[in-house]
Amino acid sequence: MSAPKKVVLAYSGGLDTSIILKWLQTEYGCEVVTFTADLGQGEELEPARTKAELLGIKPENIYIEDVREEFVRDFVFPMFRANAVYEGLYLLGTSIARPLISKRLIEIAAETGADAVAHGATGKGNDQVRFELSAYALNPDIKVIAPWREWDLTSRTKLLAFAEENQIPIAKDKRGEAPFSVDANLLHTSSEGKVLEDPAEEAPDYVYQRTVHPEDAPNEAEYIEIGFEKGDPVSINGEAMSPATILTALNEYGRKHGIGRLDLVEGRFVGMKSRGIYETPGGTILLEAHRGIESITMDRGAMHLKDQLMPQYAELIYNGFWFSPEREMLQAAIDKSQEFVTGTTRIRLYKGLASTVGRWSDHSLYSEQHVTFEDDAGAYDQKDAAGFIKLNALRLRLLAQRERHSHN
Amino acid sequence: MSAPKKVVLAYSGGLDTSIILKWLQTEYGCEVVTFTADLGQGEELEPARTKAELLGIKPENIYIEDVREEFVRDFVFPMFRANAVYEGLYLLGTSIARPLISKRLIEIAAETGADAVAHGATGKGNDQVRFELSAYALNPDIKVIAPWREWDLTSRTKLLAFAEENQIPIAKDKRGEAPFSVDANLLHTSSEGKVLEDPAEEAPDYVYQRTVHPEDAPNEAEYIEIGFEKGDPVSINGEAMSPATILTALNEYGRKHGIGRLDLVEGRFVGMKSRGIYETPGGTILLEAHRGIESITMDRGAMHLKDQLMPQYAELIYNGFWFSPEREMLQAAIDKSQEFVTGTTRIRLYKGLASTVGRWSDHSLYSEQHVTFEDDAGAYDQKDAAGFIKLNALRLRLLAQRERHSHN
Amino acid sequence: MSAPKKVVLAYSGGLDTSIILKWLQTEYGCEVVTFTADLGQGEELEPARTKAELLGIKPENIYIEDVREEFVRDFVFPMFRANAVYEGLYLLGTSIARPLISKRLIEIAAETGADAVAHGATGKGNDQVRFELSAYALNPDIKVIAPWREWDLTSRTKLLAFAEENQIPIAKDKRGEAPFSVDANLLHTSSEGKVLEDPAEEAPDYVYQRTVHPEDAPNEAEYIEIGFEKGDPVSINGEAMSPATILTALNEYGRKHGIGRLDLVEGRFVGMKSRGIYETPGGTILLEAHRGIESITMDRGAMHLKDQLMPQYAELIYNGFWFSPEREMLQAAIDKSQEFVTGTTRIRLYKGLASTVGRWSDHSLYSEQHVTFEDDAGAYDQKDAAGFIKLNALRLRLLAQRERHSHN
Amino acid sequence: MSAPKKVVLAYSGGLDTSIILKWLQTEYGCEVVTFTADLGQGEELEPARTKAELLGIKPENIYIEDVREEFVRDFVFPMFRANAVYEGLYLLGTSIARPLISKRLIEIAAETGADAVAHGATGKGNDQVRFELSAYALNPDIKVIAPWREWDLTSRTKLLAFAEENQIPIAKDKRGEAPFSVDANLLHTSSEGKVLEDPAEEAPDYVYQRTVHPEDAPNEAEYIEIGFEKGDPVSINGEAMSPATILTALNEYGRKHGIGRLDLVEGRFVGMKSRGIYETPGGTILLEAHRGIESITMDRGAMHLKDQLMPQYAELIYNGFWFSPEREMLQAAIDKSQEFVTGTTRIRLYKGLASTVGRWSDHSLYSEQHVTFEDDAGAYDQKDAAGFIKLNALRLRLLAQRERHSHN
Repeated sequence: MSAPKKVVLAYSGGLDTSIILKWLQTEYGCEVVTFTADLGQGEELEPARTKAELLGIKPENIYIEDVREEFVRDFVFPMFRANAVYEGLYLLGTSIARPLISKRLIEIAAETGADAVAHGATGKGNDQVRFELSAYALNPDIKVIAPWREWDLTSRTKLLAFAEENQIPIAKDKRGEAPFSVDANLLHTSSEGKVLEDPAEEAPDYVYQRTVHPEDAPNEAEYIEIGFEKGDPVSINGEAMSPATILTALNEYGRKHGIGRLDLVEGRFVGMKSRGIYETPGGTILLEAHRGIESITMDRGAMHLKDQLMPQYAELIYNGFWFSPEREMLQAAIDKSQEFVTGTTRIRLYKGLASTVGRWSDHSLYSEQHVTFEDDAGAYDQKDAAGFIKLNALRLRLLAQRERHSHN
Repeated sequence: MSAPKKVVLAYSGGLDTSIILKWLQTEYGCEVVTFTADLGQGEELEPARTKAELLGIKPENIYIEDVREEFVRDFVFPMFRANAVYEGLYLLGTSIARPLISKRLIEIAAETGADAVAHGATGKGNDQVRFELSAYALNPDIKVIAPWREWDLTSRTKLLAFAEENQIPIAKDKRGEAPFSVDANLLHTSSEGKVLEDPAEEAPDYVYQRTVHPEDAPNEAEYIEIGFEKGDPVSINGEAMSPATILTALNEYGRKHGIGRLDLVEGRFVGMKSRGIYETPGGTILLEAHRGIESITMDRGAMHLKDQLMPQYAELIYNGFWFSPEREMLQAAIDKSQEFVTGTTRIRLYKGLASTVGRWSDHSLYSEQHVTFEDDAGAYDQKDAAGFIKLNALRLRLLAQRERHSHN
Repeated sequence: MSAPKKVVLAYSGGLDTSIILKWLQTEYGCEVVTFTADLGQGEELEPARTKAELLGIKPENIYIEDVREEFVRDFVFPMFRANAVYEGLYLLGTSIARPLISKRLIEIAAETGADAVAHGATGKGNDQVRFELSAYALNPDIKVIAPWREWDLTSRTKLLAFAEENQIPIAKDKRGEAPFSVDANLLHTSSEGKVLEDPAEEAPDYVYQRTVHPEDAPNEAEYIEIGFEKGDPVSINGEAMSPATILTALNEYGRKHGIGRLDLVEGRFVGMKSRGIYETPGGTILLEAHRGIESITMDRGAMHLKDQLMPQYAELIYNGFWFSPEREMLQAAIDKSQEFVTGTTRIRLYKGLASTVGRWSDHSLYSEQHVTFEDDAGAYDQKDAAGFIKLNALRLRLLAQRERHSHN
Repeated sequence: MSAPKKVVLAYSGGLDTSIILKWLQTEYGCEVVTFTADLGQGEELEPARTKAELLGIKPENIYIEDVREEFVRDFVFPMFRANAVYEGLYLLGTSIARPLISKRLIEIAAETGADAVAHGATGKGNDQVRFELSAYALNPDIKVIAPWREWDLTSRTKLLAFAEENQIPIAKDKRGEAPFSVDANLLHTSSEGKVLEDPAEEAPDYVYQRTVHPEDAPNEAEYIEIGFEKGDPVSINGEAMSPATILTALNEYGRKHGIGRLDLVEGRFVGMKSRGIYETPGGTILLEAHRGIESITMDRGAMHLKDQLMPQYAELIYNGFWFSPEREMLQAAIDKSQEFVTGTTRIRLYKGLASTVGRWSDHSLYSEQHVTFEDDAGAYDQKDAAGFIKLNALRLRLLAQRERHSHN
């Protein structure tokens, strides 16, 4: 790879990406463009501008954007249509944010004539894969710089020394090492590393940042009604909201009731297992509610196929293949299944639990007439069941005859 | 089908199966053998003997058996190895009991020289299918009698009249109609029908019989440690227990903490959707704990394949195909995956939630050395990630080149 | 089911459906509408009109239509996009025609105010299922009449007697029984029953009607070039053709070279196994050519997913679920994959074999630069492979470490 | 990676691996152990001994083994139980041999105290991945040396110069470059590269080495009967044979009749597409015959599941994951399905085609009584089909009612 001339950096404004910014300038002597996104991580963005300017970035090379609506509308919601969970439990909160960041990096590179992008993910994790697969999928000729895999700033001490040498301001609380590493966006907060590295040990309470402890949640349950259209949530308690607004509101409900905490050991794409603490308050409620509305509006055949496809779909997102033809094929199938997933789910929130207690829809497939224990006015002829069973049993009976014959 | 000469009836001792017993005698003039099983449904079995005798069944034709250990060991535990859930949520508590009952009916038919079996499931539900597919799979020549699909006792009034005509004792509380229908065994209790038929309405509190309301559960969390061997639970807090004993104990933990309630609309195999309230206290804890121990002892490749196979496995059980070659194929794959699923999961129980908070095993695949944020002493070379990503990206880059070319 | 008042009958003009026509009139006293379709079965249609009139059908109730283009465009080609084969071998020639016939029956019922449809499929086969599932899926209230399951004309003698009683003309060659049963359309001809019922015995030569014996095929190979657009064939040797025209032309190539014969024992949806002789001359060439063009234009990830979904897709079509949401979901995924499947495959035809010998496309993903044994000018860095393998191996090495540890 | 001290080299005795042998000695100064396997590639092995001795390998460090029986019994046959084909067509002839070679390399390393293994696969292909994943899976601490990815002998000229400098004998016909690259074993011969690199061009005749041109095959068909036990072939025309013997015999039948040629563009695991010419004469006959015997002995449910699992199974083998838990899980399921796959298939061989024309078995599930067009003596009640269809249609009718309702 020839040396990059102009690099778009995914820049948070924090110490680590500031060091990367400086390192890119010194190592490659290249122009740096910064991209700072509001994905709902809950931090001010303007300080990133000041810091970038301080590090010599030209104003026209500083991109600061609120991408929350795009994030939820084009990434989070399509994923929730699939009820995607990785390894049975993880709602993919970090995974789903990476493709969007890469997409903007590549777009900004095109706008600014940059020939490279850079990110601050380490060489052990999944995020480097997600960033880079997305970048290459959107621009096959882009150069990708991953300083953590390249430089020799391999200890905290060296990093701080580099920062000091280069006049990068170091916040007091960044002097020491954080007891664990955090990633956050509108969908979730993940914490991992350091104090969490022994999976036998319960995570300390102070790790949780996004939800109250269930024991501290209200002693009374709260009910909400979530409206859906074609598989996406569109309202809470009858009030229409935009995608980011609705997820923000669900996060607040979840936070208050201690919903969406997960302590997981998962298999990383790069090969080892890691332990993470995830908080996905609104997403956990949303998954429950989406299952609820699907249960009356989606046909059994469609649902079973979708359930069967889901693990591969989740794996693709986890592994960084959002921008791949196979993810798009699965999305086409999933989206097709959501045509009539319109209606309302009523959810009970209480001390860590979000439970569907009711659901209704103009497009319901539930037919009280067919299922009732009472007189069904001929909707269903019980005698049909005899033939249904007989023919379903035929191959099993032929197998049993063979089995008997084989033992004679 | 020629008339049956001797029928083995799945007999609960209750009013409905007593009417069936009598009806078989009068309709077909055939000898009846009764089979009453203790599956952990929580009812005395000896009254069934008295009642059967009263209805003229010969003592040698009355089979009363405690099958709880067999049920848990040979049916429940193999199923939990798969983390089986139907339509994302249902733990299959009713479905998994039917094959065992059919198996014993067929075995007793062979012992007693009966040419038919009979059950009390209605013509609208899944249970008839499960009973009969299992029966045919085990004896291809057996006759199956499903009185609810055949007789003309199509209303409560007619049933009671038939009972009175035939001197079948009617308990006082059976005079009126039950507000909903119940099925129970050691794994779960299900309730459906009548007051539950409107899926928009929250189920009334009195429907729940097996678990306390989460709001009435203890205000303090309780921790338990569940030991596993090859995928099956074998101990609680270090105390070894038999399969049925351990499930009984987990049920008590779950009951106390309000764990395992589910309000679901599901797609029946016979075609319509139905709404059920399920309580699976011990099973819900077990699923969480099993996922927990798998997370450190099962390889990612194995786990993802297993997750992908699970929906079809669950569907097979739900639909009544326990005794089918495809279920056995899947079981062989699943059992293969459990070879090293041995270790302990620590679970926190609190107001409806069972949460894994720790897990450890002598067979753990978790390698702190590989995953650590600290110095890993060369266990993992971060530079390998560059090549890994480059080759994973190659096909995506070729796609992107084509895409670009196609737009030129 | 109340008696039908007006029935649309799938009418071939042959003896059997003529008997059905008469039987419907006499059994139900209902008005009959006939629908005779040209699906490419190679029979004149106008005689069916004469015969229908003779049997008293009003001219406005006689529908005779050439649906070949619709058949190929909307049913055959979408299915071939999936490379669908049932049980590894069968190209689904009969299965794919049934939904179209049902669709027209239901449409004609709506136009003519009929409340029922009828078909001539027997009670042992798959076709009854395919006809009826499609009919119900398109009109949930339609009545379906399947005379072969209802009437008492259960022997050839009784059928002929009924025909004679009712002045239905009997062609001389229909007096005796056919040595096997045939179904044909533009995609294939199937033969089954009677002389074919022993699967150990080779099918006699006279069974094959659509292809020459490979030994009688030309001694010299012939080459053709099939052009594709978005997964569908559009030209042969550079000449653009309509869907039905191209399949007709491929059939002629296949016939001449003895291509597309299949002797298969298959598992029917209704439970037993049956043996069929299938001839699919053009379809066999098309499948090979489609695989050929996909091989250079479709990404590996997309192709592997598609291959994995195919067996279920084929099963759905075989079982009669063309008009089901899960088939439509799969179709959405499959169609998505065909966006760039545009180009040309060169095929060699010789004595029963159709073999891809070349393929090219403006949308090819094949990169000689990347794959070459020669100097690749840096397109591919072989050192990347080391990291790729190391990280793919990591989980296997952790497994091996455990294995070793477990044996110590 | 620290320098290796003793290396086990997969040594063919040819020029390339002789250069590697010398390079290992000179580059690392390490002791070399050679492993030369007879996998049925059709070459003498003893010259490899002479050559190894000439290059200074100690006699006790020269391993020459005939592994043909192990290859066929433990690798080829288990794979054929699955009817495995990659990307619809490729019988995996190269892929399946690699794990065996790696297994012996690792075993010999253990016996000789070697700390490394080496192979002669290039950095662009799949074989490096297959060799190395297998090696790491069997010994997590082994060092793997892939000279083609490491050295600077990057042109033919440099290689020959190195050979001359090091007194490595160069056969005359190795002076020039081969027009394509070949790999062979008892299952297949593959050819790729150079003259084959344009996928639009038909492969020249001289590329095919293992089969006669179909046009040169006998003008008369030949029939053989292949006996199977539990999914594996055990006899031809009634004569019992060992695994390698039977595959050798089938190869001869295939060679003579021009069977098993394949011209394929495939997607490599390392990301690009490549074009290969494969000849799998015996394997092609075996696949056809195995499908044939399965068709009467394997239940539909089992077969459809197996067909659905096959593409992932084939992908795992192609990608080098033979020694992975997920391949073993799939194998467990597949092997379970073969319990009754015992019987005989009759195959017709003619000018490139192997066609099943008959099959029989003591364990047949085919029931002429059930399927017959004649009187079936009550084995099958056609009226059962009505109920079967009605209940299968129920969900489709509910969907159609909704559809109608939605448009009102």
